[in-house]
Amino acid sequence: MTNPTTITAQPGTPFIEMRREFDATPAQVFRAYTEPELVVQWLGPRDLKMDLLEFDARPGGSYRYVHRDDQGNEYGFRGVFHTVLDGERIIQTFEFEGAPGQVTLEYATFEERNGRTLLRTHAVFPSVEARDSAAASGMESGMRDSMDRLAELLPAPGE
Amino acid sequence: MTNPTTITAQPGTPFIEMRREFDATPAQVFRAYTEPELVVQWLGPRDLKMDLLEFDARPGGSYRYVHRDDQGNEYGFRGVFHTVLDGERIIQTFEFEGAPGQVTLEYATFEERNGRTLLRTHAVFPSVEARDSAAASGMESGMRDSMDRLAELLPAPGE
Repeated sequence: MTNPTTITAQPGTPFIEMRREFDATPAQVFRAYTEPELVVQWLGPRDLKMDLLEFDARPGGSYRYVHRDDQGNEYGFRGVFHTVLDGERIIQTFEFEGAPGQVTLEYATFEERNGRTLLRTHAVFPSVEARDSAAASGMESGMRDSMDRLAELLPAPGE
Repeated sequence: MTNPTTITAQPGTPFIEMRREFDATPAQVFRAYTEPELVVQWLGPRDLKMDLLEFDARPGGSYRYVHRDDQGNEYGFRGVFHTVLDGERIIQTFEFEGAPGQVTLEYATFEERNGRTLLRTHAVFPSVEARDSAAASGMESGMRDSMDRLAELLPAPGE
């Protein structure tokens, strides 16, 4: 059975929160977040192809990737890592190249819960309007797809 | 006469805005923001000494500095640059090492106004509580000191 992904966008705030549990250890989930050969296998909606052009998950490292659909449309994203704390926390910037100058700061924390992992993310937008327009853009279904793909990628408990 | 520095922290938001005009061009103000030998001359309160340990103002570059008072107390700060757009805009992360994990995203824009510069900054905190506690910590007088010191450092118009 698939664990639920909970996404919260409190009205009037510039934040989006997400919670998801995984039947894997924090070290395993963290690894899927930081190793480029794993990241390409889960990040983004299922119906898009991803080219990971740069991915250096350490403080001061950069990343850039492009999602492509069947019609040949391209969506580029880029950012830098501020914090990469092994197995615990990642803090990074995020910018959609189609809306340059609207940069989000994204927190991800990996908490151990009886051998499983509670992943919590907290995205901070530069304004309530920027958050509202991101939330209206279909971002939520992309987040759910990503989390389900990540769960499928992780080793089964005990493996 | 000194130009005023306007600082706004709207209740219930995680933002702090600042506006300040300078009698200098955007290129000159931008240079003071990005060249380490100039940054050390204005960034921070007047009564603190600054050691700039790292300062690489380009996308993906890092910075770190330590402010020291007369009693030997040290206050470390660090971050990474997301955007450095020549003469126009800087977007960077900011973290006080005394409160690790509370990272701010800071926007600075440099706008030309009849040969003078309107500097606007927009700081985005991870929560309203983090913004409130930063605002209560004396940050505002440090910002005003910094802006006045920056104005003193800039060449007079026509120079």
